[in-house]
Amino acid sequence: MKTKVSLLALASILGAQLCVADTNAPASDWKPCPSNQAGKQYPQYNSEGRVKFRIVAPEAKSVGCTFRESSEFTKGDDGAWYGHTRPLDEGFHYYSIKIDGAEVPDPNSRYYFGSSRWGSAVEIPAKDRDFYALKNVPHGHLREVNYFSKSSDKTRHIFVYTPPDYDKDTSKRYPVLYLQHGGGEDETGWAHQGYTGFIMDNLIAEGKSKPFIIVMENGGVGGPRPTNAAPAGAGGRGAFNFSAFEKVVIEDLIPHIDANFRTLADQPHRAMAGLSMGGMQTRSIAPAHLDKFSHIGVFSGGSIGVTNITDMARFKENVKLVFISYGSKELGPNTRGGDPKAVTTALKDAGVNAVFYESPNTAHEWLSWRRSLHEFAPLLFKD
Amino acid sequence: MKTKVSLLALASILGAQLCVADTNAPASDWKPCPSNQAGKQYPQYNSEGRVKFRIVAPEAKSVGCTFRESSEFTKGDDGAWYGHTRPLDEGFHYYSIKIDGAEVPDPNSRYYFGSSRWGSAVEIPAKDRDFYALKNVPHGHLREVNYFSKSSDKTRHIFVYTPPDYDKDTSKRYPVLYLQHGGGEDETGWAHQGYTGFIMDNLIAEGKSKPFIIVMENGGVGGPRPTNAAPAGAGGRGAFNFSAFEKVVIEDLIPHIDANFRTLADQPHRAMAGLSMGGMQTRSIAPAHLDKFSHIGVFSGGSIGVTNITDMARFKENVKLVFISYGSKELGPNTRGGDPKAVTTALKDAGVNAVFYESPNTAHEWLSWRRSLHEFAPLLFKD
Repeated sequence: MKTKVSLLALASILGAQLCVADTNAPASDWKPCPSNQAGKQYPQYNSEGRVKFRIVAPEAKSVGCTFRESSEFTKGDDGAWYGHTRPLDEGFHYYSIKIDGAEVPDPNSRYYFGSSRWGSAVEIPAKDRDFYALKNVPHGHLREVNYFSKSSDKTRHIFVYTPPDYDKDTSKRYPVLYLQHGGGEDETGWAHQGYTGFIMDNLIAEGKSKPFIIVMENGGVGGPRPTNAAPAGAGGRGAFNFSAFEKVVIEDLIPHIDANFRTLADQPHRAMAGLSMGGMQTRSIAPAHLDKFSHIGVFSGGSIGVTNITDMARFKENVKLVFISYGSKELGPNTRGGDPKAVTTALKDAGVNAVFYESPNTAHEWLSWRRSLHEFAPLLFKD
Repeated sequence: MKTKVSLLALASILGAQLCVADTNAPASDWKPCPSNQAGKQYPQYNSEGRVKFRIVAPEAKSVGCTFRESSEFTKGDDGAWYGHTRPLDEGFHYYSIKIDGAEVPDPNSRYYFGSSRWGSAVEIPAKDRDFYALKNVPHGHLREVNYFSKSSDKTRHIFVYTPPDYDKDTSKRYPVLYLQHGGGEDETGWAHQGYTGFIMDNLIAEGKSKPFIIVMENGGVGGPRPTNAAPAGAGGRGAFNFSAFEKVVIEDLIPHIDANFRTLADQPHRAMAGLSMGGMQTRSIAPAHLDKFSHIGVFSGGSIGVTNITDMARFKENVKLVFISYGSKELGPNTRGGDPKAVTTALKDAGVNAVFYESPNTAHEWLSWRRSLHEFAPLLFKD
């Protein structure tokens, strides 16, 4: 018994010393990231949220990655370079690998459109990832659709999610959510990194959301920043001008969707939402077309203040929901348009059905937006 | 006048000399490749079919690409590395960039799944590219579909093309073509690099093909080579065993498609085709299930000989079309199974509706297969 205690005490002391000596050593419980190409063992993540890379670059002088405060990359016994990041938030992060000054995609990761380029991203599984997991439930279809837009004089590529029962009962018609990506992203954002299909499949299977169609356009109208963007405003941040995209949505997109899908083609059954730049587009377009939209969602894209609404009676009559969300880590005194929670509470006090959601422990990243969709969808089209 | 002639003569002599001195200099009519990421000026192609790359790698000792016989890459005045390929065939080619021994995707190209990895590819526009061009015609939808497969005990991801009028008249039912990719590729092959949607949209708009559904599965069943692949056969080449994939197709895939799409769910309205490994799968699966398939297409994947058919009377009664194709540059005395044109002629002489197509000036590459689909589709489901 005495020996046992001594050993335990010794182990405890050693453990404490190791702890002090190895403060910066990463936990060794590395696992391959779900964002890897099939069969690739790297990148890996650990329980601290660090990501470790393995890059084969036999004659390189230096290898690194674009994550700030990463470890130095060093050559392992197998001749490949290894390095890891600081602890990152759970969720999804874009990055590149640096090889002797060249910024290139990691050959081990899958590729996504973000940061205005196709390139690498890494997924650190979130504790609540179950809500966007692929499950054996009825699945909707994610359709790639090309349609001709008169206002932009070109064929545009969009994604359309149709719910699981869409092809079963062809007499049924559905509400529509128009859902927009952020700056530097495109119509693939919600479809791929957003897991829109799996989030909706799971919500519908659990009976938590009505089934509806989701339309994902490219809000860039030619690029992540509209070519007709106004110069930087007095606020010191670039002002966005969404008039070209507004024409696409109102004159081309909605008519195409209503003509080619079994929609409930009226204002009570049409919603618009978006993240970041897509949230700003939603705040700009939906309130200007209250004859078209009844539900509004703004994720990490500012809020709608009482003073923004010129005709409150008309707004209240037409708008059934204003949903504002942010990641907790991006909220602060400088959040655009003031504290969005306070602004949303004031809107609620003015009689609007306004809901604020704060995503715990996330920043301006996809986990905030997946969660926002997951919270927003059940509130839509409740007749 | 005299001066003019002298100058012309001088120019002519100089031109001839330059020509001799610069035999290997590429033509300077470079244009950005259509496979580039939006807004990227490189890679570029020229009228000789060469491809030129531009890679920013300030501290690299050497830069190159995986195309054989490419020029040395050298630093340009702007500090970026430049190099070009030998003349390549028109069409689509996978490649990687090499930076100090690291093989990585080109940050300027879009990414495709081929050569068993997501990575770069370059498209050199073919003279006959009009048939797979995006045009302002009615477009079908390319659907990403997830379905649960009992035989492989997992949810499988497939693409399904539904023709332009599929959502217009919901009482109409359609034939189905099951269309398979090659080795080292997956279900995205025909959907993306194959341009299946645009090929069919254009054929249907021109009235040259009946509208039908196209289903694209992942023939790898866990990888490009089945895990249950038999060891290399006596012929010295690896023998493929497609029994796991056959179970998926017959027991899971066809029932799922017939239950979830408006199909004509009978043998006369069901076809199977594939390229390379997918052609071998077609030759293996379709003739073994003559109660299920009536039309067979094999693109660069061998041929069906008279001696391969055990019951010719039954075969002729059930099979309405055998279509065999190859790129002209891959045909030769060693083509697997013998000269496919002669084999196909013999099949025709035996009374089978057998058609051989040779794609001019192409090898074992996507332009051969896009053209094969373009020739094959109009022959299908002619009642």
